[in-house]
Amino acid sequence: MTPARFAVALPAGQWSTDPAVVNAHRWDRSGWQPAGRPIGVAFAREVTDVQAVLRAASAARVAVTVRGAGTGLAGGAAASAGSVVLDLSGMNRIRELSVTDAVAVVEPGVITADLDRAAREVGLCYAPDPASAAISTIGGNIATNAGGLSCAKYGVTRESVLGLDVVLADGERISTGRRTVKGVAGYDLTGLFVGSEGTLGVVVGATVRLRPAPRSTVILAAFFDTFAEAAEAVTALGVAGIVVAVAELLDGRTVRAVDAATGSDLASAGEVFLLVQTDGSGAGEEADAVEGILAERARRVRRSVDEATAEALLAARRSALPALERLGRVLIEDIAVPRGRMAQAAARIVEIGAATGVDIFTLAHAADGNLHPIIVVDPADPAIPERAWHAAEQIFATALDLGGTVTGEHGVGVLKRRWLATELGSRSHDLQLRLRQVFDPAGILNPGRAI
Amino acid sequence: MTPARFAVALPAGQWSTDPAVVNAHRWDRSGWQPAGRPIGVAFAREVTDVQAVLRAASAARVAVTVRGAGTGLAGGAAASAGSVVLDLSGMNRIRELSVTDAVAVVEPGVITADLDRAAREVGLCYAPDPASAAISTIGGNIATNAGGLSCAKYGVTRESVLGLDVVLADGERISTGRRTVKGVAGYDLTGLFVGSEGTLGVVVGATVRLRPAPRSTVILAAFFDTFAEAAEAVTALGVAGIVVAVAELLDGRTVRAVDAATGSDLASAGEVFLLVQTDGSGAGEEADAVEGILAERARRVRRSVDEATAEALLAARRSALPALERLGRVLIEDIAVPRGRMAQAAARIVEIGAATGVDIFTLAHAADGNLHPIIVVDPADPAIPERAWHAAEQIFATALDLGGTVTGEHGVGVLKRRWLATELGSRSHDLQLRLRQVFDPAGILNPGRAI
Ligand SMILES: Cc1cc2nc3c(=O)[nH]c(=O)nc-3n(C[C@H](O)[C@H](O)[C@H](O)COP(=O)(O)OP(=O)(O)OC[C@H]3O[C@@H](n4cnc5c(N)ncnc54)[C@H](O)[C@@H]3O)c2cc1C
Ligand SMILES: Cc1cc2nc3c(=O)[nH]c(=O)nc-3n(C[C@H](O)[C@H](O)[C@H](O)COP(=O)(O)OP(=O)(O)OC[C@H]3O[C@@H](n4cnc5c(N)ncnc54)[C@H](O)[C@@H]3O)c2cc1C
Repeated sequence: MTPARFAVALPAGQWSTDPAVVNAHRWDRSGWQPAGRPIGVAFAREVTDVQAVLRAASAARVAVTVRGAGTGLAGGAAASAGSVVLDLSGMNRIRELSVTDAVAVVEPGVITADLDRAAREVGLCYAPDPASAAISTIGGNIATNAGGLSCAKYGVTRESVLGLDVVLADGERISTGRRTVKGVAGYDLTGLFVGSEGTLGVVVGATVRLRPAPRSTVILAAFFDTFAEAAEAVTALGVAGIVVAVAELLDGRTVRAVDAATGSDLASAGEVFLLVQTDGSGAGEEADAVEGILAERARRVRRSVDEATAEALLAARRSALPALERLGRVLIEDIAVPRGRMAQAAARIVEIGAATGVDIFTLAHAADGNLHPIIVVDPADPAIPERAWHAAEQIFATALDLGGTVTGEHGVGVLKRRWLATELGSRSHDLQLRLRQVFDPAGILNPGRAI
Repeated sequence: MTPARFAVALPAGQWSTDPAVVNAHRWDRSGWQPAGRPIGVAFAREVTDVQAVLRAASAARVAVTVRGAGTGLAGGAAASAGSVVLDLSGMNRIRELSVTDAVAVVEPGVITADLDRAAREVGLCYAPDPASAAISTIGGNIATNAGGLSCAKYGVTRESVLGLDVVLADGERISTGRRTVKGVAGYDLTGLFVGSEGTLGVVVGATVRLRPAPRSTVILAAFFDTFAEAAEAVTALGVAGIVVAVAELLDGRTVRAVDAATGSDLASAGEVFLLVQTDGSGAGEEADAVEGILAERARRVRRSVDEATAEALLAARRSALPALERLGRVLIEDIAVPRGRMAQAAARIVEIGAATGVDIFTLAHAADGNLHPIIVVDPADPAIPERAWHAAEQIFATALDLGGTVTGEHGVGVLKRRWLATELGSRSHDLQLRLRQVFDPAGILNPGRAI
C-alpha cells in the first residue's frame, strides 16, 4: 500500500488530514488500540462521495476503514494504519417513511433512535433497539446485524432490512432485496451484506421494515437468589408460551454496583434482578401470566401500574452500565448460548473471574441466551491488562463449549478474528474468505477485520 | 457430461434406473416439462448417502437434480436430461425437539406439517405454513425460502432457520449458523443457503426455531364489492397497528368458482372475499379492532364464535384451489408488490387475462402484497398453450413495473430465469453467478436452475 498516491476530489470540507480530526476517527468503543494512523478522513454526504472515495482507493490500492458512529465494540471501525476513514455519519437523511407500505428508506448515517422516533410519530416503530440506539447509525447496525433488548420478540436487525443500496469496492453501486416483505428472486444478497462488517461493500441506503408501535406495555421486575433460578424462570416463560418483548437479567455483582451507584437497595430484595416487558394488545393478559410464573420462583415480583412505576423499574437496568463505568474502564463482551445453558455460562464466567483475578459483571438479554460479561479494569492502567484479554478468551471458549457463539450481536471486528475459524470450521471459513474475494478482489475494504 | 461413467455405491434399494421410478421423479408441480430424462434416482437415507452421490457425480461430472417432495411450482426439481435425481424424502427423522431451547433439529425430508404437529404436542409450533405444508418437505421449504399464510406476523422460512448442515458439491459436509437465536460470527451462510434452490449445496439437516403455539385464534370473513376496497381494508388494518396472523384475499372470479364448486353462495354477500385471522393472547381484542375497521368498509363481516363457525369461514379459502382445479389445469403464479400497490396489480392482472384470452383467478396473501394469479388452462391441451405463458410473462412484467418481484415465495426454478437479471440488475446478477461458482465450481448442482 502506498498511501501517498491516494487522491480524491470531494466537495470542500469533506476531506481532512488534520491530526486532531484523524485522531477522533481512529477508534471505536472496544478499547482496542490500532497501531499506526489512517491517512485522512473522508466525510461522505452523497452516494457519489462514497463512489469517489472507493474509486480513488481502488486506484491507489489504499485500504478503506468504513465508519458509522464508531460505537462498535469489536474494533471493526478502528482504523488500520495507512487507511482512509470513510465516515458515513453525514449521510443522515430519512428519505421516505411510508405508512401504507410500513417501510422507511434511509441513508446509512441516520441515528437508530431518530428513525424510531420518526416512525412513532406516525404510529409505527423501528423494532431493532440496541442499547446504543441513541448514538449508533443504521448503517453500523446493518453492518454488524445489531441486536438489542427486544430481539426475542421482534428479531435482530436482519429481520427488519428488506433491501439495500451498496457501493462495491470498485465504486459501482448495486441494489439488493426489495420493498416487499416477501421475495425470493436470486440469492439473499441483502442478508449477506447484513452483518458483513463493511467487508463486502459500503451500505449507502436501506429500505427497512417498520412495525406498528405497540400501544400498551407492562413492566415487571423480579428478584432471585441465584442467576440459575432467574435463568430458569425465563425459560419457564417461554415454555409457558409467552413471548415477552424484553427479558433483561442483571447478576448479583451488577445489582450491588447499581445499589452503590444510585443509592438504591435492590440487593436486599434478592441478588439477581430480572426485568420483563410485555407489549401489544395482549400485554396485560401476558403480564398476568408472567407474574404468576415469576411469583412461584422469585423472592419478590413488582409490576408497573403507570408510567412512573415503570420508569422506576427500568431505572435499575438503565443504570447498570453507568454504574459499572464508575468502577473503571469497561470492556463489554458478548456471547450467546442456547437458552437452556445460560445459567451454566454465567457460573463459568464467575469462575473465570475468580481464576484470572478480573472483575466481571454479567448482564443478559435472557430470552435470547445472549450474555454480556462486562470486564472492568483499572482506568489508571495505560493499556488493557493482559489478564483481562485472557479472561475474555476464556469466556469465548466457554461459549463455544456450550454450543454457542463468540459473538451474539457485536460482531467479529479485530478482537474475535482468531476465534472465527474455530467457530465456523475450516471449510466454512475458507468459503467465507472466497466470498469476500468475489466482492472485493483487491482487499481494500476493512482489511484485517471480520473474516 | 457423460452419464455412462456415473456409478455410486448405495445400500440396496436406494438406486433405481427403472423407467417408471425415473418417470415419477422427473417433474414438479409447475406444469413444466423437462426435455430428456434423468439417468436414475438415488434415494438418500443418511448423510453419507448424499455424500456418496455428490462425490460420484463430481467424479463423473454428472449433474444432480436435488429433490424434496417435488411440490415446487417453478420447475426447480424438474430433472434435467442426463442428471441424477437425488431424492431426500427418505431422510425424514425429527432428530430432536427441545422445549427448553424452543428448537427442533430435523432431517430435510421431514414433511412440514409433521414437524408442526410434533411441535404442537409440546405446546410449540413451526410457524412457516405454505399451503403445501401437508405435502412439502422442510428441505424444499428451506431451498425455496417458502412463505405461507402467516408470514406477515411470523416471517418466512428464513426467519425460522437457525442453522444448517449442508453437503457441498464435492461431498464435504459443513455446518452453518447455530442453535442460538442470535449470532453474528462470519457471513450469514445460513441465509445464503436458504432460498438458493439447491444450487449451492444439499441441505441434509436443519436446526429450526419453534414458537409458542398461539392459544386462541379468531377468524373473520369480510365481503367487498371490489378487490381495491378489500386491499384498502388490509392496508387500513396495518395502519391501525394490527398485526394479523392471516389475511387471505380471493378475487370475484375465484369466489364465483368456489360457489360453483361447493354450492355456497358467497358471491351474493359481495364479490371479493377476505379472510382474517388474529391469534395469541390479544386475539380477541385485535379481532374487535379488525371487525370495526372492516365493518366500515365491507358489505358484510362475519366472525367465528366457535370451532364450527371458524371452519365454515375457512372453508371458502380452503376450497379455492380445488374449485379452480375442477375448471382445468392450474398454473399457480406468484408475484409480490408493495402492499399499497396490490389493488393496481390485481387490476392489471384482469386486463392481462382479457387481452390474452386466458382465464386468470387471483388469490393473495394480502398482508404481504403477495399475489397468486392462477391461470387455468384446458386440460385437453397436451401442452400448456403459448398464450398462458404469454400471460404469465406479462404478470411478471407488471410485478417489476410496480416495484415488486417476479417471485414472492415459489422461487425462480426454470420458469423465471430469464427475468432474474432484469429484476436484479446485471452487476448483482453477475455477483450471484460468481457466488455460485465459489460453492460449485464444476456446476453439477441443479444446472440451468435458479441463477
Ligand atoms: C453503550 C453501548 C451499548 C451497546 N449496545 C449494543 C446492543 O445492545 N446491541 C448491539 O448489537 N450492539 C450494541 N453496541 C455495539 C454498537 O453500538 C453496535 O455494533 C452498532 O451497530 C454500531 O454502529 P455504529 O454506527 O457505531 O458503527 P461503527 O462502530 O462505526 O462500525 C461498526 C462496523 O460496521 C461497519 N460499518 C459502519 N457503517 C457501515 C456502512 N454504512 N456500510 C458498511 N459497513 C459499515 C464498520 O466498518 C465496522 O466494521 C453497543 C455499544 C455501546 C457503546
Ligand atoms: C398446492 C400447492 C400449494 C403451495 N403453496 C405454497 C405456499 O403457500 N408457499 C410457498 O412458498 N410455496 C407453496 N407451494 C410451492 C412448494 O410447495 C414449495 O416451494 C415447497 O417449499 C417445495 O418443497 P418440496 O419439498 O416439494 O421441494 P421440491 O419441489 O422437491 O424442490 C424445490 C426446490 O428446492 C430444491 N431442494 C429440495 N430439497 C432440497 C434440499 N434438501 N437441499 C437443497 N435443495 C433442495 C430443489 O432442487 C428445487 O430447486 C405450493 C405448492 C403446491 C403444489
